Formats: sequence, C-alpha cells, structure tokens
Amino acid sequence: MMGWCERMEVAILGYGTVGKGVEAILHQEAMKDKGLHIRYILRRHQSQCTQANMVSDIQIILNDPKVDLIVEVLGGIEPAHTWIIEAMKHKHHVVSANKAVIAKYLDEFSKCARENKVAFAYEASCGGGIPWLSAIHKAKRIDTIHELHGIFNGTANFILDHMQKDGCDYQDVLKQAQTLGYAERDPYEDVEGIDSTRKLYIASSLAYDASLPYPIPCFGISHITLQDIKLIQKWQLCCRLISQSRRVGKHCAMVTEPILYPYSASEAAVSENNNIGCFYGDTIGELKFFGQGAGKLPTANAIIQDILDIDEHVCHEGFLSKQNLIIDERLLHGKYLIRCKAQAKSEALLSSIYEQSFLFDHAHYMITKDIPCAQMHALYPKLKELDDHCFFARFHEDKEYTL
Amino acid sequence: MMGWCERMEVAILGYGTVGKGVEAILHQEAMKDKGLHIRYILRRHQSQCTQANMVSDIQIILNDPKVDLIVEVLGGIEPAHTWIIEAMKHKHHVVSANKAVIAKYLDEFSKCARENKVAFAYEASCGGGIPWLSAIHKAKRIDTIHELHGIFNGTANFILDHMQKDGCDYQDVLKQAQTLGYAERDPYEDVEGIDSTRKLYIASSLAYDASLPYPIPCFGISHITLQDIKLIQKWQLCCRLISQSRRVGKHCAMVTEPILYPYSASEAAVSENNNIGCFYGDTIGELKFFGQGAGKLPTANAIIQDILDIDEHVCHEGFLSKQNLIIDERLLHGKYLIRCKAQAKSEALLSSIYEQSFLFDHAHYMITKDIPCAQMHALYPKLKELDDHCFFARFHEDKEYTL
Repeated sequence: MMGWCERMEVAILGYGTVGKGVEAILHQEAMKDKGLHIRYILRRHQSQCTQANMVSDIQIILNDPKVDLIVEVLGGIEPAHTWIIEAMKHKHHVVSANKAVIAKYLDEFSKCARENKVAFAYEASCGGGIPWLSAIHKAKRIDTIHELHGIFNGTANFILDHMQKDGCDYQDVLKQAQTLGYAERDPYEDVEGIDSTRKLYIASSLAYDASLPYPIPCFGISHITLQDIKLIQKWQLCCRLISQSRRVGKHCAMVTEPILYPYSASEAAVSENNNIGCFYGDTIGELKFFGQGAGKLPTANAIIQDILDIDEHVCHEGFLSKQNLIIDERLLHGKYLIRCKAQAKSEALLSSIYEQSFLFDHAHYMITKDIPCAQMHALYPKLKELDDHCFFARFHEDKEYTL
Repeated sequence: MMGWCERMEVAILGYGTVGKGVEAILHQEAMKDKGLHIRYILRRHQSQCTQANMVSDIQIILNDPKVDLIVEVLGGIEPAHTWIIEAMKHKHHVVSANKAVIAKYLDEFSKCARENKVAFAYEASCGGGIPWLSAIHKAKRIDTIHELHGIFNGTANFILDHMQKDGCDYQDVLKQAQTLGYAERDPYEDVEGIDSTRKLYIASSLAYDASLPYPIPCFGISHITLQDIKLIQKWQLCCRLISQSRRVGKHCAMVTEPILYPYSASEAAVSENNNIGCFYGDTIGELKFFGQGAGKLPTANAIIQDILDIDEHVCHEGFLSKQNLIIDERLLHGKYLIRCKAQAKSEALLSSIYEQSFLFDHAHYMITKDIPCAQMHALYPKLKELDDHCFFARFHEDKEYTL
C-alpha cells in the first residue's frame, strides 16, 4: 500500500514528446509534495542516456522491485505489448497512452492486470487531456451507457475547421497543420479515421464492458474538397470526423465517418485541434467533455492523473469483457451526401437508395434515403471504382436538404 | 471502513423531486449489488410517513450509529445548516445538493468534516448531473486553475435559447418554461443570476482553495427584450447568462452577467435548459463539461456518485481555505452593450466610457470601451434610476460592433 507520505517510484518507457511532458510536469514545484519520483527513463540506445536516471535495458526496470509504476509512452505495437505484459507480471502498475497497442490488446492487458493485482490505466490513450475514460468509468457505476460518440482526432478536426473558416484546399490546410505541429509528416492514420477508430474501440469496450465485433466501418476526410465544404456551408452545416457506437442489449454498431452538423451543435463548436467526447446514460442523460485531445502537456496531465489515482487507490473496476456484442447494422443509420463523378453509373449503383441527385459547381452529388451506415460503407469500394476521389458524409439531422 | 461487500446505510433528509430521484435510482436493479440501503427518509410531518423507512424526527437519524451517510436535499438555509453540522458531529458522512446552504457555509462545513473525520460532498450543488466539481478536484491535483466560467442555470438558459430560436417575448418563454417544469413559479433567483452566483462561489472556492470576497457583481436576464435579441442576432451573436471568476496570485474577480458569444462558441451551443462548466489549467489547457444542470435523475445521479466515491474511499482533499483572495476589479473586463431609454442623461452618465450610441428599432443603445465588469455593475443603479428596465451585456470578443 502506497499513500501520500510514501514515495512512488516511476519508470518512463520512451522519451518522446509525451515522455518529456510527464517529466516536465513531475518536476514542477506544485508536484514536489505528491511523492512521485522518476526512477528510470528508458532510452532505446545507451548513447542517448544523458541523464543519471536513463537506462537502455528494459530488464533493469522490470527487475527492480522498487519500481512501483511504469509509464509506457513508446507508441506502436512492439515492444510496447511485450513490455506492458512483462511489467505487470513483475507486479508493476502500468499507465499507457499508446492507443494502437491498447486497441489491439485491451482484453489481454485487463486480464493480466487482474491476475497480477496491479492497475492498468490508459486515460491518455483516448481524448488526450480530456477526463473522458474516467467519466465513462464513473457513469457506468450507475447507468447503462447506450451511445457514445466524439471527435477524437485533432489533426482531422484542424483540417476540417480551417477548410471551412479560411476557404482553403485540403492540401493547403494539411501543410499548415504540419507546419504548426498539429499533423504528422505522414498523416494517414489521422485523416483516414484509423486513429479515431482505435479510440472509439477503447472507449466503447469500457462503456459497454464487452468484446466488440470487427471490422469497424471507417471512412476519413482525405477526399473532402473545398467544393464539398461550400455545398455543406450553403445548408448552414459543418463537417466533423466522428466516431460513434451504439449498443442495445447484446447488439451494437460502430462507425467512423464525416458527419454534417448544424452550426448550433456542440460538435460544430469544436474548433482547431480540439476533441469532444459524448455519451448518453439512463439517468444522467447526455454528457459532453471538451478539451485538448493531444499535445505534450495535456496528454502528460492525463497520464499523471492516472498515476495519482493509482497512488490514491482510486482503482476503477476497469474493463471487464462480460459479453461479446453482435453487430446489428440497423443501430446506426442516416441520410448520406455522396459526391461521385460518374453520374449515370453511380446513380445506377445506388438506384434503390438515392433520393435526389444534382450538380453543384459542375460536380455530381447524390443524397440517399436513411440507410444503415454499414450499407454506405459496403457501397464505398464500388463507388471508388467509379471515382477514386469520391466522398460521402452522413447528415446528423433527418431534414430535407436541396439546392 | 466500508467496502463493496458491506452495506452502506443511507438516510435521506427531504422527499422532494431530488430525494425521490435518489430513491428511484437506488431501487434500480443495477444498483442492488452496490450495497446502498435507504435506512431512513425524513419527512416534515408524521402524517407524511407513508413508508416503513420514513420518520419525522431528525434525532432518530442523528442518533442511529448504524447510519453511515446522510443525503441532505431539503433546500434552504435552516434547518439544513444545523442538521448538516449535527450529522457530521454524529460521525455521519454528508452529501448535499443544497447550493444555498453550501454557498453560505462551505467553510464551516469543510472544517466540521475534517474535525469529525467524515466526508462532506456536494457535486450535485453545482452543475447538477455534470461531473464538474470532481473535475475541478482532479485538475487541481496537478494544475493551478486560473479561470472558470459556465452556464449554471437551466431556467435562464432555456429562456434565452427560446427567445432567440422562437422569437418570443421574455414573458411568453418564461410561461412556457413554467409549464414544462423548467422554471419555478417564482423564478426570481434563477433569472436574476442569484442561483448561478451561488454555484460560481462554490466552484471558485474549490478551484482556488480560497475564501472569496463578497459581494459578487450580479446582473440577470429579466430585463432582456426581444428587441435586444434581434440586435444581438444582427451581429451573429447569442446571449448567455454566464458566471465567471479569474484568479491571479492572491487576487481575483468574479461576476454573473449576460455575455454575448459568437455562434461558433461552445457556450452558444448550450441549448434548452442545459449547463456548461469550463476551466483553464496550466498544463491541461481548457476543459469544458456539458450536460443537464438540474432535474430529478441527473441531480440524483450526482448525489449517488458522491455516495459511491465515499463508499470507495475516493476522498478528495476537499475545500481548503488556504488564503483570503482580494478583489482586483481589473481581472474581468470587456466592452458592454447597454440599452437605456434616457438618451441624453445616460450618455452624460457614461460620457467617459461610451464609444458609440445608436438607435435600433427606436430604442437607444450604447457600446462602451473595455471597462472592468465591476465598474459596469457599479453604474447599473444609476442607469436604473434613468430607466427601470435598462439592460446590459458584455461582448465576449473585443471586436467592432456597429449597426
């Protein structure tokens, strides 16, 4: 048992942006009385070990019984997966911000933590600095959560927000985001919705205490054009990359895709590279949490919140895979806006589901009936054959949209 | 020490909407395994004691050593104040939703709880179902909080939102809110900002760990006209009743007043009777929490979250009055829109601070320079002498607004 009076010995695996953020916060004056001490920082190479507490051999950390807790901020799947498991087997608590490895191994990590009576915490992996997973933890003590959704990728949101505000092309805004450090040099996982979908998987697993079915339909924003934005703005709508899941009993549906919101929606008010997480509970109603979804200090803050919770024995029950949920595609649905060059062929392809088609600024658009999201995503490869750069987005509200 | 295996015996003082909500949630199937048992419900009169667990004598509850925790949902100052103190002296934990008594006696309650080694929790008193105070608790473990603000009154927000959406008069929307149960028969404390100011005081005390200076400048929305709304909408702005505080070192400023936000602001996206709470921390940046600020089940949910935290020994350090903050009026300031009938006299009164004046729909408006909020509130009684129904609101953004 540790407490406020005792010292908690922490080892940080990885010394990138987030690792340095954790170190920076722990060195702040206000944190000195919390008794958190960085015993080790793991660097990949001996030559990088420029501080007295830096080591390049993971075994030194794993085998030091004085280590209480390991912060994993390596990113990627291996060696993160192996080292997280090994750390817990060596009776170290683990706090991770690594959404890729957690989305893949959440079940294994949770079981391993329970078997070894240690904590596995991962607030920072989903929504960065927003206390979003802990809100889900708290909510499900009382409520059944039926639905959750959010904007979980700051890069994609920055691009959409600035295309709309500044009237710039996708590529121009992407370059601006890269210059500002809001987008990676290779933004593929961010703009294609892969990063968001991992966070959706993590949050939904926790909210529903269930093993979730793959694959999750996922369509990103890399095809969106300024023309699309202008059309959307004509309707006083605003495009956001949303990840959403809904659960009814043993059934669920999940999706990541662009959604068109009215200007008055909270999601439309999420500007720049911010994130929002929303869920619905029986008695609490709708709760929404807004903040910085990434970045050195907000992410490090979330990691340290997890460490303090573990230190204060605020141990949430964690993720329990109580059941396997089955996909019911009908649970998520809506009308879609589709842009596809090949007018005749795309209309033939969608003949049973499209309600109207029109030209806007010489481009061919269609609006569908209310269809399951999964059906739209199943049609996408066929549309892509007709137009490699075709785009679609779901309308949040079931209204009539015409030119 | 209590835990998941043992039973926690709860007594509810008061059986109004919220008391009934607590009972309803605790009787839900999903709550059965939490070990929370309603031992007593206090009714004012013996004749109201229609259930086996109802009593009308507070002494029975205070003197029963089997009672672990008392939920105070009586409302008002007395006997709530006396009974909360007595309960803690009898070593019962206390959870309260009563913002009036907490805003007045937070310091005394917090000291009494520490002296008697019991918990005093009050999440539901501020922001209803939104886990807002617990977010402040968590944030200040790491960060210094410099600023907080929010929409803390659902009645006022409903009125403003519907005046704007429906283009209806204040009185018509108030009547509608009363019919829907979103406004009290006497809405005075809600529409005049008194309720919001209490919540501001509670949240700010906690955020800054300080005893705060009175009085808090407070101006509500009861004077707003459809004409004001139409003018504001011309500028693509939206009026919200905001309570705000800012702290720099040993200084602070606090205010409750209408603020004019652009449509793209998160505050503008708070519709109907919802609430939002926002704060800024050094490392976490800006966090915003949106949800139901009142209502039977959301408020009861917040109370039960407090009970579960106490049961699981998640005992926040609580409010510590570490210092007395001194008012520095300059910390909160802005440009104001003022409507006042007496054109010549009001222009003379505000001659040193107004930048422009104009007629809109035959009414006389002025826009001031950037001035301290406290200065505006100090001028109000003089403006009121000139026009009993005059109105003012602060611009959120320091832009040029002209007709």
